[in-house]
Amino acid sequence: MEKFRQFMALLLAALLLGTLSIATVLIWVLHWRRGLAWDSGLLEFNWHPVLSTIGFIVINGFALIIYRLPWTWNLSKPLMKNIHAGLNIATFILMIISLVAVFDFHNSKKIPNMYSLHSWIGLAAVIMYALQIGLGLCIFLLPFTPMYIKAFYMSIHVFAGLFIFGMAIVAAETGITEKLIFTLRSGSNVTLPYSQSPPEAIFVNALGILILVFGGYIFWIATRSEWKRPPEQVKDNTSIEEGSTLNKTNISAEISMDSVLESTPRSRQINLEDVGQRATF
Amino acid sequence: MEKFRQFMALLLAALLLGTLSIATVLIWVLHWRRGLAWDSGLLEFNWHPVLSTIGFIVINGFALIIYRLPWTWNLSKPLMKNIHAGLNIATFILMIISLVAVFDFHNSKKIPNMYSLHSWIGLAAVIMYALQIGLGLCIFLLPFTPMYIKAFYMSIHVFAGLFIFGMAIVAAETGITEKLIFTLRSGSNVTLPYSQSPPEAIFVNALGILILVFGGYIFWIATRSEWKRPPEQVKDNTSIEEGSTLNKTNISAEISMDSVLESTPRSRQINLEDVGQRATF
Repeated sequence: MEKFRQFMALLLAALLLGTLSIATVLIWVLHWRRGLAWDSGLLEFNWHPVLSTIGFIVINGFALIIYRLPWTWNLSKPLMKNIHAGLNIATFILMIISLVAVFDFHNSKKIPNMYSLHSWIGLAAVIMYALQIGLGLCIFLLPFTPMYIKAFYMSIHVFAGLFIFGMAIVAAETGITEKLIFTLRSGSNVTLPYSQSPPEAIFVNALGILILVFGGYIFWIATRSEWKRPPEQVKDNTSIEEGSTLNKTNISAEISMDSVLESTPRSRQINLEDVGQRATF
Repeated sequence: MEKFRQFMALLLAALLLGTLSIATVLIWVLHWRRGLAWDSGLLEFNWHPVLSTIGFIVINGFALIIYRLPWTWNLSKPLMKNIHAGLNIATFILMIISLVAVFDFHNSKKIPNMYSLHSWIGLAAVIMYALQIGLGLCIFLLPFTPMYIKAFYMSIHVFAGLFIFGMAIVAAETGITEKLIFTLRSGSNVTLPYSQSPPEAIFVNALGILILVFGGYIFWIATRSEWKRPPEQVKDNTSIEEGSTLNKTNISAEISMDSVLESTPRSRQINLEDVGQRATF
């Protein structure tokens, strides 16, 4: 019960930070950057930080910890996989619109694309995210993928998901940095330049800090073993009995390979059905 | 043996990426930014990216994985703790010099300090690093710290170390972003502005990518359970026998608290002596 309360406190903090991040980016573009529109101009650009924060940071973050929510442990595994996939696909769609907005703005204003470190990291992250979703769908949702491939790929999928989320945070922080420098230039029609810390600069720097701290909470929740979804014992035993000899052999081979350098006795119960969320670090 | 080869391949890749990052930042400041000096001017500023890359990125990164090197598993635990602490203290000293260089440059040029997101994240990371080192020394190196405090603090120490390393990467990427924008302005005496992708811009963006990929290798190596330093069996048994009843009781309480929401049977051997590097995620 104590652990459950700790989990709820962390989850509520993450929800609060995610909501505050979205509110902050919206206040930024609506109050300081003249709002949102699809006009090939600055108002279209504004969709880029808004959709990226909602999608690549907040929804992506919660998609990473969806299996950790204790009240979902009684729900079926396929349902949870579909929710996880759905949240990530929704994020990917938001990111496509987000990228169209910025390329459209650049092209209409004759600003070169893809020259900044922000653009390199951000686009690489979106491409890796597409690969991650595609491979995840093929490997974990197609019914005929052999179990030993799922077992092998799982730790890569979990690590890649967290690493891409980290890249999204780096992209957000570099994006905020370059947008504030470009917008709050001395000489442009702003009352104070970035270096004089006008309210907008402080407000948007704070957005950067909110996103970083939100990321910290997501990483912490995603990497605690005590909040892993428990194996589904009854279904597992059935599926072990039903599993082909080939698959069982491969799974055992994989696990003993993993144990080559493992020093501590490994007696965790291996559940084939549950391989979809067991591996974490 | 296969696992050992995999580990060596990853470690060599990390060494290569770390060396390349340091070489790249040195070539940047020596070839494009006129070199290094302690003159309160731009050449003094140049120490900031150089020392930050060497210290906060590369040495800090290797300090995180020092317990993972299989050929150190036969060395004594206190020796390894001292190497780990030594690398982090060396990094902290480099970061103090790195910060003095940038504050000194700003002050002599009347440029405000601490207005950018880069400065907020970077300084927060260095302050957290100082706290992490101080708490680490008190808790893991002072001989009289109760074992239950070590056990409780370990997972926080491991997570905080990786999170601060992540913050250092974010600081590096935002720092590169703002330095390239400030330096390669159209109108300043550069042949091409940042937006026209001159060789310097591509070269330094590549430094940002090198640092990101280096971080990926460090995170991967640091979070694989199969490369954890094995418990020291003989010493452990001795220390369990020698340990006070109070400490043993507290350790047990801690571990069973951890297991409240843990679904898989937990039969790992608990070694008091080894608590210093067991907890990882």
